[in-house]
Amino acid sequence: MEKTITVLPGDGIGPEVTEAAVKVLQAIAKRYNHTFNLQYGLIGGAAIDACENPLPEETINACSQSDAILLGAVGGPKWDQNPSHLRPEKGLLAIRKHFGLYANIRPVKAIPALLEASPLKKEVAESVDLVIVRELTGGLYFAEPRKKTNDYAVDTLVYTRNEIERIVDTAFQLARSRRGKLASVDKANVLDSSKLWRQIVEEKKQGYPDVEVEHMLVDSTAMKLITKPDYFDVIVTENMFGDILSDEASVITGSLGMLPSASTREDGFGLYEPVHGSAPDIAGQNKANPAATILSTAMMLRESFQMETEAAAIEEAVFNVLNDGNFTSDLEIKGKRVLSTTEWTSKVLEELDS
Amino acid sequence: MEKTITVLPGDGIGPEVTEAAVKVLQAIAKRYNHTFNLQYGLIGGAAIDACENPLPEETINACSQSDAILLGAVGGPKWDQNPSHLRPEKGLLAIRKHFGLYANIRPVKAIPALLEASPLKKEVAESVDLVIVRELTGGLYFAEPRKKTNDYAVDTLVYTRNEIERIVDTAFQLARSRRGKLASVDKANVLDSSKLWRQIVEEKKQGYPDVEVEHMLVDSTAMKLITKPDYFDVIVTENMFGDILSDEASVITGSLGMLPSASTREDGFGLYEPVHGSAPDIAGQNKANPAATILSTAMMLRESFQMETEAAAIEEAVFNVLNDGNFTSDLEIKGKRVLSTTEWTSKVLEELDS
Ligand SMILES: CC(C)[C@H](C(=O)O)[C@@H](O)C(=O)O
Ligand SMILES: CC(C)[C@H](C(=O)O)[C@@H](O)C(=O)O
Repeated sequence: MEKTITVLPGDGIGPEVTEAAVKVLQAIAKRYNHTFNLQYGLIGGAAIDACENPLPEETINACSQSDAILLGAVGGPKWDQNPSHLRPEKGLLAIRKHFGLYANIRPVKAIPALLEASPLKKEVAESVDLVIVRELTGGLYFAEPRKKTNDYAVDTLVYTRNEIERIVDTAFQLARSRRGKLASVDKANVLDSSKLWRQIVEEKKQGYPDVEVEHMLVDSTAMKLITKPDYFDVIVTENMFGDILSDEASVITGSLGMLPSASTREDGFGLYEPVHGSAPDIAGQNKANPAATILSTAMMLRESFQMETEAAAIEEAVFNVLNDGNFTSDLEIKGKRVLSTTEWTSKVLEELDS
Repeated sequence: MEKTITVLPGDGIGPEVTEAAVKVLQAIAKRYNHTFNLQYGLIGGAAIDACENPLPEETINACSQSDAILLGAVGGPKWDQNPSHLRPEKGLLAIRKHFGLYANIRPVKAIPALLEASPLKKEVAESVDLVIVRELTGGLYFAEPRKKTNDYAVDTLVYTRNEIERIVDTAFQLARSRRGKLASVDKANVLDSSKLWRQIVEEKKQGYPDVEVEHMLVDSTAMKLITKPDYFDVIVTENMFGDILSDEASVITGSLGMLPSASTREDGFGLYEPVHGSAPDIAGQNKANPAATILSTAMMLRESFQMETEAAAIEEAVFNVLNDGNFTSDLEIKGKRVLSTTEWTSKVLEELDS
């Protein structure tokens, strides 16, 4: 198959981790006889520096002409004092909105080799295998009116039926392909938008009799993600709750540096990026953990290109390298072998070559 | 001193835990020569059953004529299908709003005897000693417009300067009386209300040069509360973020059944309640852990009545009973002695008597 991928390295460690992932993509292309056309674009701080726009027109054009997007990370102290429209994360918000990438999918699975690095007790974290499905283009993030004066400020949380229906469908379908359990998270005892959300989940569940669905409040969910994270299979929630809960979930297994994410829409087009940030403190030092970005390309192959075998091959290679005791310096594992970004990536490439 | 306290037992285990706390208040009155006039009122499901109103007029009147309120807990499956205005939690929201109780204070401190019950590793949780200051009468909880049709729904997040200033002042003052560190939590990279929040914190910090203040994003805070909870001293945040983060924080030390809370305003009037819920599954079985409610009365004595010695005596009694190996059945501690609610309370009373 021939596919075009736009790579947006971004800021901080973004260029290093996307470079690692690109090597893996090239190895996959060779091994499975695909052609991946790679084109590069600017986003975030890098784009602000080059052309005073966190999401330049050329980047949008490049992405429009491609089958998927691979993003590194955006942001850094250099741009922290910028006015709002010249902030790196505006590029991220704008690209999600522009391409209608409403479904943010974040799997969190315990990796035995990494449990030692988890803040949770082994017995609490070891069976974790959940996915958070976060609505990504609605709610408080984009709705009007929004206004700030010196004396008051307003944000607006709006959801339409259609916005809720499509993300709820995504989640039901995902739950059906997994263990058949869905937790729909809202704050229906306070918010009108949550009442509509809950109503639509109730309607939709008729169409998925094989999925067991439960409504949970966002505050209790924040507790249960710590006390009993293995309780969850698929979690679906609105944009802001999803932002908070998915970050919370990302640290429970000790493997933040390993977590991939996808932001997709109905037709399968999607943006793939690591869950971790741009880590400006270690940028350019060949220290970053490229695993999350490499695993994000596996998600891309599976979700956007239907290349299940290829995706599984990448995942297997990554886990083999970890199980052999190879880690990057972000992971605090006793007696581990510490490799640089490029060394660790070479191990993965060797696995894919063998 | 003579003080009038309105006790609102509420639902589920509420009556049992408030009864325990009342016994402790009576012991304190005797030992320190105070008069506590106790009057009782209905709230939540109990009030809905009695007069179809989760916060009856008589309850408001009783509270108005008192110096502080002690609340058990509200809610339960019996009222879960009720229309919105006949839900137990409406009583809670209404009492907060009616009395302008804008400052919700929730201390979370590791208790060595209970660390075993924590989902976190001992070394992560053992030094935790933080307080969450949550704004309680603004934001998404109360602002208009709020509307739900079959096709869309809207909630509104509004904050005025005055609402932000007073809660930020509360938090700075608290930080000053503790370790002098304040984390102000917002989502200023997305929300206009957070931008105003951040601006006001920046203005206010001039008045508290002895407090070190840091702005943190709500998503990173949700992570850090798990990976490094002992990083925090005082956390201040808006209503909805506070709801989520304070519940998250409440489980990190394994002592949810131990956590008290205060909801207060400038003049010191306040409502005191345990952080845990009404636990309908164990209601009426003399099994509930009364510690959180007993410790809430200690907060009442300290915050509303300036009775520091008395408050400290209650806290010492509770910790002595725990350190002697006495627990209620909610706490999973190996080799523990399991007591009923009344037995455990008697131990606390013995301590206060001795
Ligand atoms: C950078 C920020 C705007 C963004 C968000 O809140 O969505 C980030 O936290 C994320 O989760 O991708
Ligand atoms: C019951 C509910 C409305 C309430 C809230 O969200 O404030 C509760 O979760 C709390 O934190 O006291």
